[in-house]
Amino acid sequence: MKDFYLSFDESSPKYLQLTKHIKELITSGKLTNHYRLPSIRRLSQHLKVSTSTIVQCYNNLENDGFVYKKVGGGTYVIGDNNKSMLKEDFSDISLESKVPYDFASASPSPVFFPVKTFKELLNRVLDRDGGYAFNYQEQGGYLPLRQSLTSMLTNYKIYVTAQEVSIITGGQQGVDIIAKALLEKNDYVVVEKPSYPGAIASFNSRSANIIEVPIRQKGIDLIQLEKVLAQYKPKLMYLMPDFQSPTGYQYDLKSRKKVIELANKYNTYIVEDDHFSDLNYTSNSLPPLKSLDTMDKVIFVKSFSKAFMPGLRLALMIPPSSLHNQLNEVKQHTDISTSGLVQRAFDLFLREGLWDVHIKSTKQIYARRFSTALKMLERTLPWEVPFTHPTGGLCIWVSLPHNYNSQTLYYEALKKGVAILPGHRFYFSQNQHNTFRLSFTSVTEQEIAEGTKLLGDTVKQFLTDYRDLGHLKHPKSKFF
Amino acid sequence: MKDFYLSFDESSPKYLQLTKHIKELITSGKLTNHYRLPSIRRLSQHLKVSTSTIVQCYNNLENDGFVYKKVGGGTYVIGDNNKSMLKEDFSDISLESKVPYDFASASPSPVFFPVKTFKELLNRVLDRDGGYAFNYQEQGGYLPLRQSLTSMLTNYKIYVTAQEVSIITGGQQGVDIIAKALLEKNDYVVVEKPSYPGAIASFNSRSANIIEVPIRQKGIDLIQLEKVLAQYKPKLMYLMPDFQSPTGYQYDLKSRKKVIELANKYNTYIVEDDHFSDLNYTSNSLPPLKSLDTMDKVIFVKSFSKAFMPGLRLALMIPPSSLHNQLNEVKQHTDISTSGLVQRAFDLFLREGLWDVHIKSTKQIYARRFSTALKMLERTLPWEVPFTHPTGGLCIWVSLPHNYNSQTLYYEALKKGVAILPGHRFYFSQNQHNTFRLSFTSVTEQEIAEGTKLLGDTVKQFLTDYRDLGHLKHPKSKFF
Ligand SMILES: Cc1ncc(COP(=O)(O)O)c(C=O)c1O
Ligand SMILES: Cc1ncc(COP(=O)(O)O)c(C=O)c1O
Repeated sequence: MKDFYLSFDESSPKYLQLTKHIKELITSGKLTNHYRLPSIRRLSQHLKVSTSTIVQCYNNLENDGFVYKKVGGGTYVIGDNNKSMLKEDFSDISLESKVPYDFASASPSPVFFPVKTFKELLNRVLDRDGGYAFNYQEQGGYLPLRQSLTSMLTNYKIYVTAQEVSIITGGQQGVDIIAKALLEKNDYVVVEKPSYPGAIASFNSRSANIIEVPIRQKGIDLIQLEKVLAQYKPKLMYLMPDFQSPTGYQYDLKSRKKVIELANKYNTYIVEDDHFSDLNYTSNSLPPLKSLDTMDKVIFVKSFSKAFMPGLRLALMIPPSSLHNQLNEVKQHTDISTSGLVQRAFDLFLREGLWDVHIKSTKQIYARRFSTALKMLERTLPWEVPFTHPTGGLCIWVSLPHNYNSQTLYYEALKKGVAILPGHRFYFSQNQHNTFRLSFTSVTEQEIAEGTKLLGDTVKQFLTDYRDLGHLKHPKSKFF
Repeated sequence: MKDFYLSFDESSPKYLQLTKHIKELITSGKLTNHYRLPSIRRLSQHLKVSTSTIVQCYNNLENDGFVYKKVGGGTYVIGDNNKSMLKEDFSDISLESKVPYDFASASPSPVFFPVKTFKELLNRVLDRDGGYAFNYQEQGGYLPLRQSLTSMLTNYKIYVTAQEVSIITGGQQGVDIIAKALLEKNDYVVVEKPSYPGAIASFNSRSANIIEVPIRQKGIDLIQLEKVLAQYKPKLMYLMPDFQSPTGYQYDLKSRKKVIELANKYNTYIVEDDHFSDLNYTSNSLPPLKSLDTMDKVIFVKSFSKAFMPGLRLALMIPPSSLHNQLNEVKQHTDISTSGLVQRAFDLFLREGLWDVHIKSTKQIYARRFSTALKMLERTLPWEVPFTHPTGGLCIWVSLPHNYNSQTLYYEALKKGVAILPGHRFYFSQNQHNTFRLSFTSVTEQEIAEGTKLLGDTVKQFLTDYRDLGHLKHPKSKFF
């Protein structure tokens, strides 16, 4: 009880002073997890303040996440919530992180991050560079990292100088910078249909007109694309040639060459979002658009989030030379520069040759999960529910029969402990949709086997139930 | 010589294969700093390739910053450029980092960063949280950090819950997010005149109309401000009440209350950019606008760059509750989330009570430099050249007589080894200007004494020379 004692001053209301004091007791570790705070009456007598002061204080503490209340009574300390409260990634908002079979999140699993190695590198950087690692970095990014990336990129058949590479704070920032630099109100932008919601949001924030062109197994629909290019003269097209998100489709060589040709013909830029090409589970890789780019039309953005660690907030961008200065300037007034510490540590990671090692082992894990998932889905999903069979990436795209709403299935599956990601968020309109996405990054093979079985049962039941209800006649509003 | 041997394949042109090979020799440390590469003839004979292959390769290496050439001949390795090439911060682009007296940069000096302590905290975070520190973080930021910040903010008389605080990737990102969320083409924005160029750039990127209202010693000119508010109904005003950049002026309490009143009356938001309030060299601090905000009009942005370490890329934002969701969403499609590792380490830094300790010692250093500088400038600058006398922050603002151009003075001073920051960049128009900024973060007191003396001499000479030339008649173009 004596820890709670406090002599009040006139600086602010008493309940705030007390709140601050108890927070300090908690954060200093004096009050530990699940410690029961004194009752309101006892504490008010002890401190000679009104009970309402204590009530206000305890409410504040609860709001701020420092304590929780039990229904039967009593207020208890939340001592350490470092590992809790971790929400999933942007495109993958899975609110139910405690679901036993989480097929919604496509964040790579933190269990596979090379934390020990990276920790060592961080320490080496700090011993070597001291405070310079915590200063603003030079425009375009830390030069040695840009040099290492230049060598790395030759493996992707991209031959550039360090000056042509810009370091950015994640792939999302890349897309956002490009939108800011190139798009004005009512400009047209082409995206694949379906596409990555973060990109759609960035284009939207520029009040651009977003035109969706369907993605097929071998790439974007080239005939529709050409029509759209001819008619609207869009400023740019946003494409994911390797293991497109969310479908997992991969452009074949013909489609790659053709989109370049069309970009040249209609004088438009291509934003190539390379998020997944490193997670290729076969041995045949196709050249990135950037390497086929003859007329300097491709803005290449390569994120290290999915194949490495999202929390680095690190990606690279290679603009056409005509856009180089403009994009670097926009990057500057977006967040000045990307963390020097992270840039330096990642530079060492590359120089030590650890990238290839990491990719190899990560691929092995995901490839196994992925092939288990595909095999299981073949068995458990009914024939009316086809799905994509990607050879890389982290996602499988499933289609219910026309007019079935995946949002409804989502709720049904959740009851069984299975989380899926309904497809509407990958469309500009965000209307109800019959598609959904599955991902298998944070579940074991055992869980994949069990979860896909449960999902299959749910889907079958769902198709029957809703067929019996005459799903074709369901009004749209019914589902929302 | 044997290290250079390489068996070429058909994958790419020979000069590229050789470039890659030599880069690897350099980055692996086999070839060290200043190592002289073999002559073109010798290497071409050794590898049995044409001399032009070697020439192309060496040129590439030079372009990428891996080698340098000496005028007399010879190509030499740049072994480690980690510490070189460090450019100064955005607003403070000082191209001449080797100037003996650098009064241009306002970046805090890396020498004072608590690198050891922070390194320890980073290690503790990694031991505790493992891969979770490298995952995407929850929306709004890492909750425990938001909790620590909530306690910290009570020292600024700001009483908020953790949910109201958003973590962002630096103050620049805060301004940029706000611009993106609130401004559309042709909206009006008020900034102080002069103001921070990074903010002007962000508002500009939304095609907003920027209206400059003069800043005076005790705050923005309130009469002009009210006129502008009445006439243009701006969406927001961007203000720096504490040690405004670049002037160093501080709003008095009356001005603070009045701008809040005006924001309420004309229904406009205030962006309060708190960059410097922690570097207050007196003991009287004034309440931030946020703490006086009665009608939820203030968007508070607090950066940790200048008082702590810019390279963290960390700041906090407290939006009015009505904008909370919108700004958090825009933050998401700007860069998804801020580095989890940095958020967690900074959280520990605060919980250990290290913030106050750090600020105290940093302030001591800068306060001494600042007062030396002010004393010296009193002695060395002629009476026609007044300057501000801030009681905090890192900058002093100097005015030459009307019609003298500080850009010309800049070149003159540079010849003497003194760097100043010409004032035009702090104005929307960026026309020539008679003002300049001085900063004393990365110079010792000895250097301040010497440099201000040199500067004083230069200014006197400059005033005479240009008066003799009849400066009033100088055409604008003359100066550019
Ligand atoms: C296709 C795609 N592009 C870009 C991003 C942005 O990721 P980051 O900013 O972490 O690189 C994501 C994230 O989920 C994504 O799925
Ligand atoms: C007044 C002001 N605001 C904001 C910033 C942005 O800094 P950061 O993004 O590092 O917080 C700066 C940087 O120089 C500045 O001077």
